[in-house]
Amino acid sequence: MTILSSPVPLQNPRIFSYTSHRSTIFLPRVSSSAKKSFSLKCSRGDLFDTQQQRNSGLGDGAPTARVFVGHSIYKGKAALTVEPKAPEFSPLESGSYKLSREGCIFLQFAPSVGTRQYDWNRKQVFSLSVSEIGMLMNLGPKDSCEFFHDPFKGKSDEGKIRKVLKAEPFPDGGGHFFSLSVQNRLQNIDENIYIPITRAEFTVLNSAFNFVIPYFLGWHAFVDSVKSEIPSGTNRSSSEFEWGR
Amino acid sequence: MTILSSPVPLQNPRIFSYTSHRSTIFLPRVSSSAKKSFSLKCSRGDLFDTQQQRNSGLGDGAPTARVFVGHSIYKGKAALTVEPKAPEFSPLESGSYKLSREGCIFLQFAPSVGTRQYDWNRKQVFSLSVSEIGMLMNLGPKDSCEFFHDPFKGKSDEGKIRKVLKAEPFPDGGGHFFSLSVQNRLQNIDENIYIPITRAEFTVLNSAFNFVIPYFLGWHAFVDSVKSEIPSGTNRSSSEFEWGR
Amino acid sequence: MTILSSPVPLQNPRIFSYTSHRSTIFLPRVSSSAKKSFSLKCSRGDLFDTQQQRNSGLGDGAPTARVFVGHSIYKGKAALTVEPKAPEFSPLESGSYKLSREGCIFLQFAPSVGTRQYDWNRKQVFSLSVSEIGMLMNLGPKDSCEFFHDPFKGKSDEGKIRKVLKAEPFPDGGGHFFSLSVQNRLQNIDENIYIPITRAEFTVLNSAFNFVIPYFLGWHAFVDSVKSEIPSGTNRSSSEFEWGR
Amino acid sequence: MTILSSPVPLQNPRIFSYTSHRSTIFLPRVSSSAKKSFSLKCSRGDLFDTQQQRNSGLGDGAPTARVFVGHSIYKGKAALTVEPKAPEFSPLESGSYKLSREGCIFLQFAPSVGTRQYDWNRKQVFSLSVSEIGMLMNLGPKDSCEFFHDPFKGKSDEGKIRKVLKAEPFPDGGGHFFSLSVQNRLQNIDENIYIPITRAEFTVLNSAFNFVIPYFLGWHAFVDSVKSEIPSGTNRSSSEFEWGR
Repeated sequence: MTILSSPVPLQNPRIFSYTSHRSTIFLPRVSSSAKKSFSLKCSRGDLFDTQQQRNSGLGDGAPTARVFVGHSIYKGKAALTVEPKAPEFSPLESGSYKLSREGCIFLQFAPSVGTRQYDWNRKQVFSLSVSEIGMLMNLGPKDSCEFFHDPFKGKSDEGKIRKVLKAEPFPDGGGHFFSLSVQNRLQNIDENIYIPITRAEFTVLNSAFNFVIPYFLGWHAFVDSVKSEIPSGTNRSSSEFEWGR
Repeated sequence: MTILSSPVPLQNPRIFSYTSHRSTIFLPRVSSSAKKSFSLKCSRGDLFDTQQQRNSGLGDGAPTARVFVGHSIYKGKAALTVEPKAPEFSPLESGSYKLSREGCIFLQFAPSVGTRQYDWNRKQVFSLSVSEIGMLMNLGPKDSCEFFHDPFKGKSDEGKIRKVLKAEPFPDGGGHFFSLSVQNRLQNIDENIYIPITRAEFTVLNSAFNFVIPYFLGWHAFVDSVKSEIPSGTNRSSSEFEWGR
Repeated sequence: MTILSSPVPLQNPRIFSYTSHRSTIFLPRVSSSAKKSFSLKCSRGDLFDTQQQRNSGLGDGAPTARVFVGHSIYKGKAALTVEPKAPEFSPLESGSYKLSREGCIFLQFAPSVGTRQYDWNRKQVFSLSVSEIGMLMNLGPKDSCEFFHDPFKGKSDEGKIRKVLKAEPFPDGGGHFFSLSVQNRLQNIDENIYIPITRAEFTVLNSAFNFVIPYFLGWHAFVDSVKSEIPSGTNRSSSEFEWGR
Repeated sequence: MTILSSPVPLQNPRIFSYTSHRSTIFLPRVSSSAKKSFSLKCSRGDLFDTQQQRNSGLGDGAPTARVFVGHSIYKGKAALTVEPKAPEFSPLESGSYKLSREGCIFLQFAPSVGTRQYDWNRKQVFSLSVSEIGMLMNLGPKDSCEFFHDPFKGKSDEGKIRKVLKAEPFPDGGGHFFSLSVQNRLQNIDENIYIPITRAEFTVLNSAFNFVIPYFLGWHAFVDSVKSEIPSGTNRSSSEFEWGR
């Protein structure tokens, strides 16, 4: 089982409907033509965040990408999709591997354009590094935080795109307003998308973040090595297994 | 190893005894005839909650359903069974999959009809969505919360069944009273079932919820993809493995 | 890889030395003769707690028991070994399984008989049910709790063995004193064993408890079923896998 | 998949550059010659901490070591690499295994020698035992803690190397200063390395610690045994699997 780096909405930038009954989400139908234009969309995304560049091979019709797992939260003014991105490993000359890039969380904000309709063409993206995730996990009911990203930092286009993600507490402490503002002078875009995230929704995200962080650091490889310490060959037959009886 | 969506009590609607010594639970014997009537019970359940509809194939004698893992809490006035329901994935034309429905927690409340006897014929069910689970996980010792469900919301029978799940704190902060009230005008049922859940019992549930949430979101598929990043073919032989020695 | 239900000290009831440098634990050498007397010790344990009865087949030279994972804490007056016990599943006529008994934590207290010497012959045992574990996980720095067990509750020997496990806070809030007192009229034993557990040691235990609770409830079977939802046959080859590049 | 005990920086003791943009870490190129000198570096490390001795076979060109997963934090005055070390299991005469040494966390501190340059030749190492990890996980925003290690405790060179790890809160509660001071009379070294760790960075570490602790205790072996309780042979075929539909 493998995984595609983008949720279905990213493949299909058309506006689509969302019906509000909590257990009924009408996801956009993915037509073949929409899928063919996917690598193009992905390239467009690259202009918005260098983090996305590493996934540039993604849309090339890779035949084995398999599961879209973006977790979406739909609200009146916007939708937010939260999705894990795998760490990367590089082979060493020795045949060993090293973690060459930690995993991250990819946030996609889409503004609403009517009741339960979201315009994924205008979506803005933001990558949370592992320690930015840690900062969010620490966010108390009255805390705020703010992250600045410049996808071209240190490059010739530095300063031309400026992204600010803010989390600010609800007055009643029941959650946080998340806002992503993007000023893109290259494309003359000035977008500001707000979405309220309740404490309950945030708890779900935290549980999921806590689950993926060790994988973002590559520590599952440690766990696999620990598991392989003890030969498991002939011992796993449950017929021989008598413990606990 | 696979799993059936319903705990054993759901298969056997007869009243049965429960002996209170904490380590001795006499589960009802499941007779063949009780099992044969199972798909019928399940259909009846469908009237109470649309969430259950997606499991309607469940009782059709599926030969591979394998493990019942409902976690039950037995108290003086009622019993509560807490059970995870798997997310659903849909194939895409590309051969990829997407998460089409998140997993949920299925609660079943049965009233007592005598000392340690519960009437599973009168059980009422309630499905907790992922963010409702998040709300429960956030419940402080003095907090309450309330969820309203209408299985027919947006349909012609809207309003005919009304379910309210409440959690209200014990006066001493040592836990919460959970109550499920169901008003069903179609079947002329008006049931209200209470069960006290101690903080300790709730901690166990929270630990279990935290364990399953990433699977409810399908993020295990992400983890599997991360694991497959590094070839594991010839390296897992423990005989070659020298690390940590 | 399988697991034996008892830590090595249980196999070897002789007094043994423990050298205090934190990274150097001299575990007792396990002689063949000590191992031969193992099923006897285990039977003796059965008198102390019915929970242990379900493991009575353990010492019968089961050829596939493989890994001892009791976690031990050694202090001036006593040692404590903490060990998980597997849940039990029963087959149903249908070929399915149900969880028939939840897992538990098995505590073994041994008094010291000199500097860093513990008498495992005098050890006393106590099984923590899942909700008792939940109560311990909830224990605040100033909270106490107490559990009473009678292994013969509801049987003719009821009241002949009385076990009380207490956890009481250090005056400075830095941990809890755990004490197990056992009054056994059948064997004329009246033992009371104390051990201080620091907040740091307790944090480690809590992390381990949190890890095993879902398995104690059998919810790993749910997770396995979720994993099997998506065919994984040909997709896991890392050579085909292009995600994240 | 297996794992090497040392991060890449340990293999390459040359000073190297680190560019500060959060998503761009230029890891040192590992030349073949640097790798050849690896076992030598590792031996040198042994003088600093006996914990490292158990990995002395590591650098001997073991052909199966595979994944480096040290998690590094780079700051103005120093860098810190945090890395898990596997527990060790010993075979018993019976063919069973016991956990003979718990896993630990290996900290490596390297001082900076200029803007974003770290001297890994002067790195100092410190091993955190499981309960020391528990102490760190408990560290409140205003708490401090301190650990003393003498790698030669109880040996003839006792007192010749003295290591002190301290964690002290930022005045604003936003994190902790970690400092490792090493007095080594054998090599006439007196090194003191400071690094500030924010609460966010610490949250990430805590999540990772929480993930590995059960493996450090060997409790994954318990989980494996639980999983093998139920035969999984023919049941995992997803084609037969109908649950949740």
